[in-house]
Amino acid sequence: MADLEPAPPAIVLVGAQMGENIGAAARVMANFGLADLRLVAPRDGWPNAKAASMAAGALRVAVRVSVFADSASAIAGLSQVLAVSARKRDMQKPVLGPREGCAAVRANAMTGTAAGLMFGPEASGLSNADVSLCDGLVTLPVTASFSSLNLAQAVAVLAYEWGASAHNAPAPPSALEPPASKAAQLGLFAHLEQALERAGFFFPPEKKPLMVQNIRNALTRAQLTEQEVRTFRGIVRALEHGRGAQGKCQ
Amino acid sequence: MADLEPAPPAIVLVGAQMGENIGAAARVMANFGLADLRLVAPRDGWPNAKAASMAAGALRVAVRVSVFADSASAIAGLSQVLAVSARKRDMQKPVLGPREGCAAVRANAMTGTAAGLMFGPEASGLSNADVSLCDGLVTLPVTASFSSLNLAQAVAVLAYEWGASAHNAPAPPSALEPPASKAAQLGLFAHLEQALERAGFFFPPEKKPLMVQNIRNALTRAQLTEQEVRTFRGIVRALEHGRGAQGKCQ
Repeated sequence: MADLEPAPPAIVLVGAQMGENIGAAARVMANFGLADLRLVAPRDGWPNAKAASMAAGALRVAVRVSVFADSASAIAGLSQVLAVSARKRDMQKPVLGPREGCAAVRANAMTGTAAGLMFGPEASGLSNADVSLCDGLVTLPVTASFSSLNLAQAVAVLAYEWGASAHNAPAPPSALEPPASKAAQLGLFAHLEQALERAGFFFPPEKKPLMVQNIRNALTRAQLTEQEVRTFRGIVRALEHGRGAQGKCQ
Repeated sequence: MADLEPAPPAIVLVGAQMGENIGAAARVMANFGLADLRLVAPRDGWPNAKAASMAAGALRVAVRVSVFADSASAIAGLSQVLAVSARKRDMQKPVLGPREGCAAVRANAMTGTAAGLMFGPEASGLSNADVSLCDGLVTLPVTASFSSLNLAQAVAVLAYEWGASAHNAPAPPSALEPPASKAAQLGLFAHLEQALERAGFFFPPEKKPLMVQNIRNALTRAQLTEQEVRTFRGIVRALEHGRGAQGKCQ
């Protein structure tokens, strides 16, 4: 049976402030069979004694931790990443509940797609720049009058839903090619943004971050395959270096 | 719409040890619209500064706390109580998952049944005596190799499922009479157990706790209505005081 069980998603904690929350997240990951914890620039460094204490052994026996300097490198090896956020964003992204989100992750994982769930810092949540790297948003159905969910509690709900998703009616497996790795997608973004920079596209310069974010959102939503990423990089090259009048005129 | 929303279940924490867990439980209750927190003999008393800190305001604005000396008095005003437990018990009780449990609570709440979810102390979980007062068990689908769930995380999963149950397909409302209040049920138990004590039924004496528990489990499972509780108390009286030969021969 073990080989029929798809790989659980990585949990990506961006800028986590409290070691206690990291430890509690690791413990509840272990409770529901998740094992890959990726920390992006944890405030108090790593390892962290408070995290070890709250993890109740999970960090020793069940959960692997890796530490990254930025979100992009943390997700480079994944192909589908959902941003977990209390608030909806003014972005053109699919918005799912925890159950639907985990069902989607499981359906893709059945075909070998490596997935992650990304959570932001306690005080501020994920930046729009981080969300723009993700393929969708998962929001939690909290009450409007008291919506601030503890980070480890948010991880608990998603970890639980991942575990429960094994017993839900499966989402139909996608017949499509899996999306490209985030590393490949990020390579395309960098390539395109550098070309646009050279072309003077980012004007006025203070608008650049928002323009970049909007472009990344749109391209992420396309769920480009590896082949399509190569195609788009060819398009950028062709446009920039003027191979073919059609490219130039656009 | 407000009057169509059934009352959320009380959260009953029996013998909670850590103020941090009580506070985190209160916070996540508020996140998902629960408001009635009942503490049975909290280890460090009440109020508790660590609980207030972890609650992030929930104890001030959203969650009422009441403190009780024992589990029976905490649930006396409720009519349906589910015990949340990591492990299945060797008891004849319905065992539900968090989703089914919350669906059942919601279906009953639609008809006005006051419900509660009972959680045990961090280190030991609920005693069998406490579980025997409950109408069913909710177990969490944790992995066998790392099954020890933090108390506040367990509350988080149930609070989340309560919130989510508003959007699930509703369980059909029961056409039955609602069960009697726990106060009425406990009154019957006490009456019956005192009569059995007088009759020398509990022999050898060291077996009494287990015998009591088994009787309570069986009667709780019957989901007796108020009328049936009165009937059973009449039966106990009749048997004890010898009104009718049939009663005596049994």
